[in-house]
Amino acid sequence: MIHIAITAGGTEETIDGVRKITNMSSGTLSWFCLQAVLSYIEQHKIEAYTIHYIKAPRAVTNELSPEQASHINFINVTNTQSVYNAVETLMNEVDVDIFIHAMAISDFSYAYSVSRSDLAEELYLDFMGNNDITVKDIEDILSSPKYRHRPEDKISSSQEIIMGFETTPKVIPLIKKINPKTFLVGFKLVKHNQDNHMIKQAEKLRKTNNCDAVFANEASQLSVKGHAGVLLYKGEPVAHPIGKKEIADAIVNLAFQKIN
Amino acid sequence: MIHIAITAGGTEETIDGVRKITNMSSGTLSWFCLQAVLSYIEQHKIEAYTIHYIKAPRAVTNELSPEQASHINFINVTNTQSVYNAVETLMNEVDVDIFIHAMAISDFSYAYSVSRSDLAEELYLDFMGNNDITVKDIEDILSSPKYRHRPEDKISSSQEIIMGFETTPKVIPLIKKINPKTFLVGFKLVKHNQDNHMIKQAEKLRKTNNCDAVFANEASQLSVKGHAGVLLYKGEPVAHPIGKKEIADAIVNLAFQKIN
Repeated sequence: MIHIAITAGGTEETIDGVRKITNMSSGTLSWFCLQAVLSYIEQHKIEAYTIHYIKAPRAVTNELSPEQASHINFINVTNTQSVYNAVETLMNEVDVDIFIHAMAISDFSYAYSVSRSDLAEELYLDFMGNNDITVKDIEDILSSPKYRHRPEDKISSSQEIIMGFETTPKVIPLIKKINPKTFLVGFKLVKHNQDNHMIKQAEKLRKTNNCDAVFANEASQLSVKGHAGVLLYKGEPVAHPIGKKEIADAIVNLAFQKIN
Repeated sequence: MIHIAITAGGTEETIDGVRKITNMSSGTLSWFCLQAVLSYIEQHKIEAYTIHYIKAPRAVTNELSPEQASHINFINVTNTQSVYNAVETLMNEVDVDIFIHAMAISDFSYAYSVSRSDLAEELYLDFMGNNDITVKDIEDILSSPKYRHRPEDKISSSQEIIMGFETTPKVIPLIKKINPKTFLVGFKLVKHNQDNHMIKQAEKLRKTNNCDAVFANEASQLSVKGHAGVLLYKGEPVAHPIGKKEIADAIVNLAFQKIN
Protein backbone atom coordinates (compact mmCIF):
# COMPACT_ATOMS: atom_id res chain seq x y z
CA MET A 1 0.00 0.00 0.00
CA ILE A 2 1.40 3.39 -1.02
CA HIS A 3 0.40 6.41 1.08
CA ILE A 4 0.80 9.91 -0.29
CA ALA A 5 -0.03 13.05 1.68
CA ILE A 6 -0.62 16.46 0.07
CA THR A 7 -1.47 19.68 1.91
CA ALA A 8 -3.40 22.35 0.00
CA GLY A 9 -4.53 25.97 0.30
CA GLY A 10 -3.97 28.64 2.96
CA THR A 11 -4.83 28.45 6.65
CA GLU A 12 -7.25 30.83 8.34
CA GLU A 13 -6.75 32.23 11.83
CA THR A 14 -9.88 33.59 13.47
CA ILE A 15 -9.73 37.08 14.99
CA ASP A 16 -13.34 37.39 16.11
CA GLY A 17 -16.73 36.19 14.92
CA VAL A 18 -16.53 38.23 11.73
CA ARG A 19 -12.85 38.59 10.86
CA LYS A 20 -9.95 36.30 10.20
CA ILE A 21 -6.40 36.35 8.87
CA THR A 22 -6.02 34.23 5.78
CA ASN A 23 -2.89 33.07 4.06
CA MET A 24 -3.29 33.57 0.37
CA SER A 25 -3.03 30.35 -1.57
CA SER A 26 -5.53 28.99 -4.03
CA GLY A 27 -4.34 25.40 -3.59
CA THR A 28 -4.06 25.06 -7.37
CA LEU A 29 -0.53 23.66 -7.35
CA SER A 30 -1.54 21.05 -4.78
CA TRP A 31 -4.43 19.97 -7.00
CA PHE A 32 -2.02 19.63 -9.93
CA CYS A 33 0.17 17.48 -7.67
CA LEU A 34 -2.84 15.29 -6.88
CA GLN A 35 -3.50 14.91 -10.59
CA ALA A 36 0.18 14.15 -11.28
CA VAL A 37 0.09 11.43 -8.60
CA LEU A 38 -3.07 9.96 -10.14
CA SER A 39 -1.46 9.97 -13.61
CA TYR A 40 1.67 8.28 -12.32
CA ILE A 41 -0.40 5.67 -10.51
CA GLU A 42 -2.53 4.91 -13.56
CA GLN A 43 0.52 4.70 -15.82
CA HIS A 44 2.27 2.34 -13.46
CA LYS A 45 -0.87 0.34 -12.72
CA ILE A 46 -0.50 0.77 -8.97
CA GLU A 47 -3.65 -0.52 -7.32
CA ALA A 48 -3.09 -0.25 -3.61
CA TYR A 49 -2.75 3.42 -2.75
CA THR A 50 -4.34 6.17 -0.68
CA ILE A 51 -3.88 9.90 -1.12
CA HIS A 52 -4.43 11.89 2.06
CA TYR A 53 -5.43 15.38 0.92
CA ILE A 54 -5.22 17.86 3.80
CA LYS A 55 -7.31 20.77 2.61
CA ALA A 56 -7.70 24.34 3.88
CA PRO A 57 -11.19 25.89 3.56
CA ARG A 58 -10.76 27.75 0.29
CA ALA A 59 -8.40 25.36 -1.52
CA VAL A 60 -9.75 24.50 -4.97
CA THR A 61 -11.04 21.06 -5.75
CA ASN A 62 -12.06 19.70 -9.12
CA GLU A 63 -13.93 16.69 -10.34
CA LEU A 64 -12.62 13.20 -9.79
CA SER A 65 -13.85 9.91 -11.17
CA PRO A 66 -15.61 7.70 -8.59
CA GLU A 67 -12.67 5.28 -8.82
CA GLN A 68 -10.17 8.06 -8.09
CA ALA A 69 -12.32 9.56 -5.34
CA SER A 70 -12.46 6.20 -3.56
CA HIS A 71 -8.68 6.39 -3.07
CA ILE A 72 -8.64 9.92 -1.67
CA ASN A 73 -9.00 10.68 2.01
CA PHE A 74 -9.96 14.36 2.30
CA ILE A 75 -8.99 15.88 5.65
CA ASN A 76 -10.46 19.35 6.23
CA VAL A 77 -8.46 21.82 8.31
CA THR A 78 -8.82 25.51 9.18
CA ASN A 79 -6.08 27.11 11.27
CA THR A 80 -2.44 26.14 11.84
CA GLN A 81 -3.20 24.19 15.00
CA SER A 82 -5.72 22.04 13.14
CA VAL A 83 -3.13 21.31 10.43
CA TYR A 84 -0.61 20.37 13.11
CA ASN A 85 -3.09 17.99 14.72
CA ALA A 86 -4.10 16.44 11.39
CA VAL A 87 -0.50 15.88 10.29
CA GLU A 88 0.52 14.47 13.67
CA THR A 89 -2.38 12.00 13.65
CA LEU A 90 -1.82 10.97 10.05
CA MET A 91 1.94 10.44 10.44
CA ASN A 92 1.40 8.35 13.54
CA GLU A 93 -1.32 6.20 12.01
CA VAL A 94 0.03 5.60 8.52
CA ASP A 95 3.42 4.95 6.90
CA VAL A 96 3.41 7.91 4.53
CA ASP A 97 5.74 7.29 1.56
CA ILE A 98 5.58 10.75 0.00
CA PHE A 99 4.54 13.98 1.71
CA ILE A 100 4.04 17.06 -0.51
CA HIS A 101 3.63 19.96 1.89
CA ALA A 102 2.46 22.83 -0.32
CA MET A 103 0.04 24.53 2.08
CA ALA A 104 0.54 28.18 3.03
CA ILE A 105 0.50 28.04 6.81
CA SER A 106 0.14 30.98 9.15
CA ASP A 107 3.17 31.50 11.38
CA PHE A 108 1.05 33.21 14.00
CA SER A 109 -2.38 33.13 15.53
CA TYR A 110 -4.44 35.94 16.99
CA ALA A 111 -3.96 36.55 20.72
CA TYR A 112 -5.77 39.81 21.53
CA SER A 113 -6.80 43.23 20.35
CA VAL A 114 -6.86 46.42 22.36
CA SER A 115 -7.57 50.04 21.57
CA ARG A 116 -4.31 51.90 21.00
CA SER A 117 -5.17 54.62 23.49
CA ASP A 118 -6.08 52.08 26.21
CA LEU A 119 -2.74 50.34 25.72
CA ALA A 120 -0.84 53.64 25.81
CA GLU A 121 -2.65 54.58 29.01
CA GLU A 122 -1.84 51.25 30.67
CA LEU A 123 1.85 51.56 29.77
CA TYR A 124 1.90 55.16 30.99
CA LEU A 125 0.33 54.37 34.36
CA ASP A 126 2.66 51.42 34.92
CA PHE A 127 5.82 53.31 34.10
CA MET A 128 5.31 56.75 35.55
CA GLY A 129 7.76 57.26 38.36
CA ASN A 130 8.69 53.56 38.32
CA ASN A 131 12.40 53.35 37.76
CA ASP A 132 12.59 49.61 38.32
CA ILE A 133 10.69 48.81 35.14
CA THR A 134 12.35 46.25 32.85
CA VAL A 135 11.99 45.32 29.18
CA LYS A 136 10.41 42.11 30.43
CA ASP A 137 7.69 44.07 32.29
CA ILE A 138 6.85 45.91 29.07
CA GLU A 139 6.79 42.66 27.11
CA ASP A 140 4.39 41.23 29.67
CA ILE A 141 1.97 44.09 29.12
CA LEU A 142 2.33 43.74 25.35
CA SER A 143 1.57 40.01 25.71
CA SER A 144 -1.67 40.53 27.54
CA PRO A 145 -2.88 44.11 28.00
CA LYS A 146 -5.36 44.74 30.79
CA TYR A 147 -8.02 46.41 28.61
CA ARG A 148 -7.93 43.95 25.74
CA HIS A 149 -11.25 43.16 24.10
CA ARG A 150 -13.04 40.18 25.58
CA PRO A 151 -13.05 37.13 23.30
CA GLU A 152 -16.84 37.07 23.14
CA ASP A 153 -17.01 40.62 21.78
CA LYS A 154 -16.98 41.70 18.18
CA ILE A 155 -14.12 44.21 18.01
CA SER A 156 -15.63 47.65 17.88
CA SER A 157 -13.32 49.85 15.95
CA SER A 158 -14.12 53.45 15.76
CA GLN A 159 -10.71 53.51 17.50
CA GLU A 160 -7.23 52.64 16.29
CA ILE A 161 -6.43 49.05 17.22
CA ILE A 162 -3.35 47.13 18.28
CA MET A 163 -3.37 43.34 17.95
CA GLY A 164 -1.04 40.82 19.49
CA PHE A 165 -0.16 37.54 17.80
CA GLU A 166 1.48 34.39 19.06
CA THR A 167 3.64 32.04 17.06
CA THR A 168 1.98 28.81 15.97
CA PRO A 169 3.53 25.34 16.23
CA LYS A 170 5.65 24.49 13.19
CA VAL A 171 4.11 21.72 11.12
CA ILE A 172 6.88 20.73 8.73
CA PRO A 173 9.46 19.47 11.27
CA LEU A 174 6.84 17.00 12.58
CA ILE A 175 6.87 14.97 9.41
CA LYS A 176 10.39 13.55 9.40
CA LYS A 177 10.50 13.49 13.19
CA ILE A 178 7.63 11.01 13.23
CA ASN A 179 8.69 9.09 10.13
CA PRO A 180 12.27 9.62 8.88
CA LYS A 181 11.55 7.38 5.86
CA THR A 182 8.88 9.63 4.38
CA PHE A 183 10.02 11.44 1.21
CA LEU A 184 9.31 15.04 2.15
CA VAL A 185 8.81 17.85 -0.37
CA GLY A 186 8.80 21.37 1.09
CA PHE A 187 8.01 24.67 -0.58
CA LYS A 188 9.81 27.96 -0.17
CA LEU A 189 8.14 31.14 -1.33
CA VAL A 190 10.36 34.22 -1.30
CA LYS A 191 9.13 37.73 -1.95
CA HIS A 192 12.15 38.90 -3.91
CA ASN A 193 14.81 36.76 -5.44
CA GLN A 194 18.10 38.58 -5.31
CA ASP A 195 21.62 37.17 -5.21
CA ASN A 196 20.61 33.56 -5.07
CA HIS A 197 18.38 34.38 -2.10
CA MET A 198 15.80 31.80 -3.16
CA ILE A 199 18.28 28.91 -3.21
CA LYS A 200 19.70 29.95 0.16
CA GLN A 201 16.25 30.09 1.71
CA ALA A 202 15.38 26.72 0.21
CA GLU A 203 18.54 25.21 1.68
CA LYS A 204 17.70 26.65 5.07
CA LEU A 205 14.22 25.11 4.89
CA ARG A 206 15.67 21.77 3.81
CA LYS A 207 18.26 21.60 6.56
CA THR A 208 15.97 22.78 9.36
CA ASN A 209 13.19 20.36 8.50
CA ASN A 210 15.04 17.52 6.88
CA CYS A 211 13.29 17.89 3.51
CA ASP A 212 14.33 15.60 0.67
CA ALA A 213 13.25 18.02 -2.01
CA VAL A 214 12.29 21.69 -1.99
CA PHE A 215 10.48 23.66 -4.64
CA ALA A 216 11.57 27.30 -4.39
CA ASN A 217 9.66 30.10 -6.06
CA GLU A 218 9.10 33.81 -5.98
CA ALA A 219 5.87 35.58 -5.05
CA SER A 220 5.67 37.51 -8.33
CA GLN A 221 5.74 34.30 -10.40
CA LEU A 222 2.73 32.33 -9.27
CA SER A 223 0.27 32.38 -12.19
CA VAL A 224 -1.01 29.02 -13.44
CA LYS A 225 0.82 29.09 -16.78
CA GLY A 226 3.78 31.30 -15.85
CA HIS A 227 4.48 29.81 -12.43
CA ALA A 228 8.25 29.34 -12.37
CA GLY A 229 10.80 28.15 -9.86
CA VAL A 230 13.48 25.61 -9.17
CA LEU A 231 13.17 22.07 -7.84
CA LEU A 232 16.02 21.05 -5.57
CA TYR A 233 16.87 17.53 -4.49
CA LYS A 234 19.20 17.31 -1.48
CA GLY A 235 20.13 20.91 -2.19
CA GLU A 236 20.97 20.44 -5.88
CA PRO A 237 18.80 22.00 -8.61
CA VAL A 238 17.29 19.15 -10.64
CA ALA A 239 14.59 20.93 -12.68
CA HIS A 240 13.36 24.39 -13.66
CA PRO A 241 9.75 23.63 -14.55
CA ILE A 242 7.43 26.36 -15.83
CA GLY A 243 3.68 26.29 -15.26
CA LYS A 244 1.86 24.54 -12.41
CA LYS A 245 1.31 21.31 -14.32
CA GLU A 246 4.98 20.97 -15.21
CA ILE A 247 5.98 21.81 -11.62
CA ALA A 248 3.62 19.19 -10.22
CA ASP A 249 4.87 16.57 -12.70
CA ALA A 250 8.51 17.31 -11.84
CA ILE A 251 7.86 17.01 -8.09
CA VAL A 252 5.80 13.84 -8.32
CA ASN A 253 8.14 12.09 -10.77
CA LEU A 254 11.15 12.90 -8.60
CA ALA A 255 9.40 11.62 -5.48
CA PHE A 256 8.33 8.29 -7.03
CA GLN A 257 11.76 7.81 -8.58
CA LYS A 258 13.43 8.24 -5.20
CA ILE A 259 11.13 5.97 -3.20
CA ASN A 260 11.48 3.13 -5.69
CA MET B 1 -34.45 54.63 -15.55
CA ILE B 2 -34.27 52.87 -12.18
CA HIS B 3 -30.86 52.43 -10.57
CA ILE B 4 -30.33 49.89 -7.82
CA ALA B 5 -27.04 49.39 -6.00
CA ILE B 6 -26.18 46.27 -4.01
CA THR B 7 -22.91 45.62 -2.15
CA ALA B 8 -21.87 42.00 -1.62
CA GLY B 9 -19.32 39.91 0.25
CA GLY B 10 -16.56 40.79 2.69
CA THR B 11 -13.65 43.17 2.16
CA GLU B 12 -10.02 42.08 2.32
CA GLU B 13 -7.24 44.18 3.86
CA THR B 14 -3.73 43.21 2.79
CA ILE B 15 -1.13 42.65 5.50
CA ASP B 16 1.79 41.62 3.31
CA GLY B 17 2.29 39.74 0.07
CA VAL B 18 0.96 36.50 1.53
CA ARG B 19 -1.50 37.43 4.27
CA LYS B 20 -4.65 39.46 4.55
CA ILE B 21 -7.51 40.14 6.95
CA THR B 22 -10.83 39.12 5.51
CA ASN B 23 -14.30 39.91 6.73
CA MET B 24 -16.35 36.79 6.64
CA SER B 25 -19.35 37.08 4.38
CA SER B 26 -20.28 34.77 1.57
CA GLY B 27 -22.34 37.42 -0.23
CA THR B 28 -25.23 34.95 -0.44
CA LEU B 29 -27.85 37.33 0.95
CA SER B 30 -26.79 40.02 -1.54
CA TRP B 31 -27.21 37.57 -4.39
CA PHE B 32 -30.70 36.73 -3.12
CA CYS B 33 -31.40 40.50 -3.08
CA LEU B 34 -30.25 40.72 -6.70
CA GLN B 35 -32.59 37.87 -7.60
CA ALA B 36 -35.45 39.49 -5.67
CA VAL B 37 -34.88 42.73 -7.59
CA LEU B 38 -34.88 40.85 -10.90
CA SER B 39 -38.14 39.06 -9.94
CA TYR B 40 -39.80 42.32 -8.97
CA ILE B 41 -38.67 43.96 -12.19
CA GLU B 42 -39.93 41.09 -14.33
CA GLN B 43 -43.26 40.98 -12.51
CA HIS B 44 -43.76 44.72 -12.92
CA LYS B 45 -42.47 44.75 -16.49
CA ILE B 46 -39.90 47.44 -15.76
CA GLU B 47 -37.65 47.80 -18.78
CA ALA B 48 -35.28 50.64 -18.01
CA TYR B 49 -33.13 49.62 -15.08
CA THR B 50 -29.54 49.03 -14.06
CA ILE B 51 -28.30 47.07 -11.06
CA HIS B 52 -24.88 48.15 -9.83
CA TYR B 53 -23.43 45.13 -8.05
CA ILE B 54 -20.41 46.11 -5.96
CA LYS B 55 -18.68 42.83 -5.34
CA ALA B 56 -15.89 41.81 -2.93
CA PRO B 57 -13.43 39.14 -4.19
CA ARG B 58 -15.03 36.05 -2.71
CA ALA B 59 -18.69 37.04 -2.93
CA VAL B 60 -20.71 34.29 -4.63
CA THR B 61 -22.19 34.82 -8.06
CA ASN B 62 -24.57 32.54 -9.89
CA GLU B 63 -25.81 32.24 -13.43
CA LEU B 64 -27.82 34.99 -15.06
CA SER B 65 -29.65 35.03 -18.37
CA PRO B 66 -27.93 37.18 -21.04
CA GLU B 67 -30.90 39.59 -20.82
CA GLN B 68 -30.45 39.93 -17.05
CA ALA B 69 -26.67 40.18 -17.30
CA SER B 70 -26.99 43.07 -19.74
CA HIS B 71 -28.64 45.10 -16.98
CA ILE B 72 -26.03 44.41 -14.33
CA ASN B 73 -22.97 46.55 -13.83
CA PHE B 74 -20.47 44.51 -11.82
CA ILE B 75 -18.01 46.66 -9.88
CA ASN B 76 -15.13 44.69 -8.33
CA VAL B 77 -13.66 45.92 -5.07
CA THR B 78 -11.10 44.58 -2.60
CA ASN B 79 -10.44 46.62 0.56
CA THR B 80 -12.53 49.23 2.36
CA GLN B 81 -10.87 52.14 0.58
CA SER B 82 -11.78 50.66 -2.79
CA VAL B 83 -15.41 50.26 -1.69
CA TYR B 84 -15.42 53.87 -0.52
CA ASN B 85 -14.08 55.04 -3.87
CA ALA B 86 -16.53 52.91 -5.85
CA VAL B 87 -19.55 54.09 -3.85
CA GLU B 88 -18.50 57.73 -4.02
CA THR B 89 -18.07 57.55 -7.80
CA LEU B 90 -21.33 55.69 -8.34
CA MET B 91 -23.40 58.01 -6.13
CA ASN B 92 -21.99 61.07 -7.86
CA GLU B 93 -22.54 59.72 -11.36
CA VAL B 94 -25.95 58.10 -11.04
CA ASP B 95 -29.25 58.83 -9.26
CA VAL B 96 -29.45 55.63 -7.25
CA ASP B 97 -33.07 54.87 -6.25
CA ILE B 98 -32.37 51.94 -3.91
CA PHE B 99 -29.09 51.12 -2.19
CA ILE B 100 -28.86 47.75 -0.41
CA HIS B 101 -25.63 47.87 1.55
CA ALA B 102 -25.12 44.29 2.72
CA MET B 103 -21.34 44.05 2.41
CA ALA B 104 -19.22 43.18 5.46
CA ILE B 105 -16.68 46.00 5.51
CA SER B 106 -13.49 46.12 7.52
CA ASP B 107 -13.41 48.92 10.08
CA PHE B 108 -9.64 48.98 10.01
CA SER B 109 -6.71 48.50 7.69
CA TYR B 110 -3.24 47.18 8.41
CA ALA B 111 -0.68 49.82 9.37
CA TYR B 112 2.44 47.94 10.54
CA SER B 113 3.82 44.90 12.26
CA VAL B 114 6.74 44.74 14.66
CA SER B 115 8.30 42.04 16.77
CA ARG B 116 7.00 42.25 20.31
CA SER B 117 10.47 42.30 21.83
CA ASP B 118 11.62 45.11 19.50
CA LEU B 119 8.61 47.21 20.48
CA ALA B 120 9.18 46.53 24.20
CA GLU B 121 12.83 47.53 23.79
CA GLU B 122 11.93 50.79 22.01
CA LEU B 123 9.41 51.72 24.71
CA TYR B 124 11.92 50.85 27.44
CA LEU B 125 14.72 52.95 25.95
CA ASP B 126 12.41 55.92 25.45
CA PHE B 127 10.98 55.85 28.95
CA MET B 128 13.91 54.97 31.17
CA GLY B 129 14.70 57.92 33.34
CA ASN B 130 12.42 60.18 31.29
CA ASN B 131 9.87 61.65 33.65
CA ASP B 132 8.38 64.02 31.07
CA ILE B 133 6.90 61.19 29.04
CA THR B 134 3.20 61.57 28.20
CA VAL B 135 0.45 59.21 27.10
CA LYS B 136 0.64 60.96 23.73
CA ASP B 137 4.35 60.04 23.39
CA ILE B 138 3.49 56.41 23.99
CA GLU B 139 0.63 56.54 21.50
CA ASP B 140 3.05 57.96 18.94
CA ILE B 141 5.37 55.00 19.34
CA LEU B 142 2.43 52.61 19.14
CA SER B 143 1.33 54.36 15.92
CA SER B 144 4.61 53.90 14.18
CA PRO B 145 7.30 51.89 15.96
CA LYS B 146 10.88 52.42 14.87
CA TYR B 147 11.67 48.75 14.15
CA ARG B 148 8.47 47.92 12.29
CA HIS B 149 8.84 45.56 9.36
CA ARG B 150 9.43 47.26 6.03
CA PRO B 151 6.41 47.12 3.71
CA GLU B 152 8.35 45.23 1.06
CA ASP B 153 9.21 42.40 3.45
CA LYS B 154 7.24 39.28 4.07
CA ILE B 155 6.72 39.23 7.84
CA SER B 156 9.11 36.71 9.32
CA SER B 157 7.57 35.31 12.40
CA SER B 158 9.58 33.02 14.47
CA GLN B 159 8.93 35.88 16.93
CA GLU B 160 5.76 37.08 18.62
CA ILE B 161 4.24 39.91 16.61
CA ILE B 162 2.34 43.10 17.37
CA MET B 163 0.32 44.72 14.58
CA GLY B 164 -1.12 48.22 14.41
CA PHE B 165 -4.32 49.01 12.54
CA GLU B 166 -5.87 52.27 11.43
CA THR B 167 -9.54 53.02 11.09
CA THR B 168 -10.89 53.03 7.55
CA PRO B 169 -13.22 55.67 6.09
CA LYS B 170 -16.88 54.85 6.78
CA VAL B 171 -18.74 53.97 3.62
CA ILE B 172 -22.39 54.03 4.68
CA PRO B 173 -22.70 57.74 5.62
CA LEU B 174 -21.52 58.66 2.11
CA ILE B 175 -24.67 57.36 0.51
CA LYS B 176 -27.31 59.72 1.87
CA LYS B 177 -24.82 62.56 2.08
CA ILE B 178 -24.38 62.46 -1.68
CA ASN B 179 -28.01 61.64 -2.51
CA PRO B 180 -30.59 62.16 0.26
CA LYS B 181 -33.31 60.72 -2.01
CA THR B 182 -31.76 57.26 -2.27
CA PHE B 183 -33.69 54.61 -0.32
CA LEU B 184 -30.94 53.17 1.87
CA VAL B 185 -31.05 49.71 3.44
CA GLY B 186 -28.37 49.05 6.07
CA PHE B 187 -27.52 45.81 7.86
CA LYS B 188 -26.69 45.34 11.50
CA LEU B 189 -25.01 42.15 12.63
CA VAL B 190 -24.77 41.70 16.38
CA LYS B 191 -22.88 38.92 18.07
CA HIS B 192 -25.34 38.32 20.89
CA ASN B 193 -28.89 39.51 21.08
CA GLN B 194 -29.80 40.23 24.66
CA ASP B 195 -32.29 42.72 26.09
CA ASN B 196 -33.35 44.14 22.77
CA HIS B 197 -29.70 44.85 21.98
CA MET B 198 -30.22 44.11 18.26
CA ILE B 199 -33.01 46.68 17.85
CA LYS B 200 -31.00 49.30 19.75
CA GLN B 201 -27.94 48.72 17.56
CA ALA B 202 -30.08 48.87 14.43
CA GLU B 203 -31.56 52.19 15.56
CA LYS B 204 -28.09 53.56 16.19
CA LEU B 205 -27.02 52.55 12.68
CA ARG B 206 -30.15 54.09 11.19
CA LYS B 207 -29.79 57.41 12.97
CA THR B 208 -26.06 57.78 12.39
CA ASN B 209 -26.24 57.03 8.71
CA ASN B 210 -29.73 58.12 7.81
CA CYS B 211 -30.87 54.65 6.72
CA ASP B 212 -34.49 54.20 5.64
CA ALA B 213 -34.55 50.54 6.53
CA VAL B 214 -32.27 48.29 8.54
CA PHE B 215 -32.13 44.53 8.62
CA ALA B 216 -30.85 43.43 12.02
CA ASN B 217 -29.60 39.93 12.67
CA GLU B 218 -27.48 37.90 15.00
CA ALA B 219 -24.21 36.16 14.15
CA SER B 220 -25.42 32.72 15.25
CA GLN B 221 -28.38 32.83 12.84
CA LEU B 222 -26.87 33.21 9.40
CA SER B 223 -27.46 29.89 7.63
CA VAL B 224 -29.19 30.02 4.24
CA LYS B 225 -32.45 28.43 5.38
CA GLY B 226 -32.42 29.41 9.03
CA HIS B 227 -31.17 32.99 8.60
CA ALA B 228 -33.45 35.03 10.84
CA GLY B 229 -33.73 38.66 11.86
CA VAL B 230 -35.97 41.68 11.88
CA LEU B 231 -36.56 44.25 9.14
CA LEU B 232 -37.09 47.76 10.46
CA TYR B 233 -38.49 50.68 8.52
CA LYS B 234 -37.86 54.07 10.10
CA GLY B 235 -37.15 52.25 13.34
CA GLU B 236 -40.35 50.17 13.38
CA PRO B 237 -40.27 46.38 12.89
CA VAL B 238 -42.17 45.59 9.68
CA ALA B 239 -41.20 41.97 9.03
CA HIS B 240 -39.55 38.95 10.68
CA PRO B 241 -38.48 36.97 7.62
CA ILE B 242 -36.78 33.60 7.95
CA GLY B 243 -34.31 32.26 5.37
CA LYS B 244 -32.21 34.33 2.99
CA LYS B 245 -34.76 34.28 0.16
CA GLU B 246 -37.55 35.54 2.39
CA ILE B 247 -35.26 38.22 3.86
CA ALA B 248 -34.26 39.42 0.39
CA ASP B 249 -37.89 39.49 -0.77
CA ALA B 250 -38.97 41.47 2.30
CA ILE B 251 -36.19 44.05 1.82
CA VAL B 252 -36.71 44.47 -1.91
CA ASN B 253 -40.50 44.66 -1.70
CA LEU B 254 -40.32 47.27 1.04
CA ALA B 255 -37.83 49.35 -0.94
CA PHE B 256 -39.88 49.34 -4.17
CA GLN B 257 -43.08 50.08 -2.24
CA LYS B 258 -41.48 53.13 -0.64
CA ILE B 259 -39.90 54.61 -3.77
CA ASN B 260 -43.16 54.37 -5.72
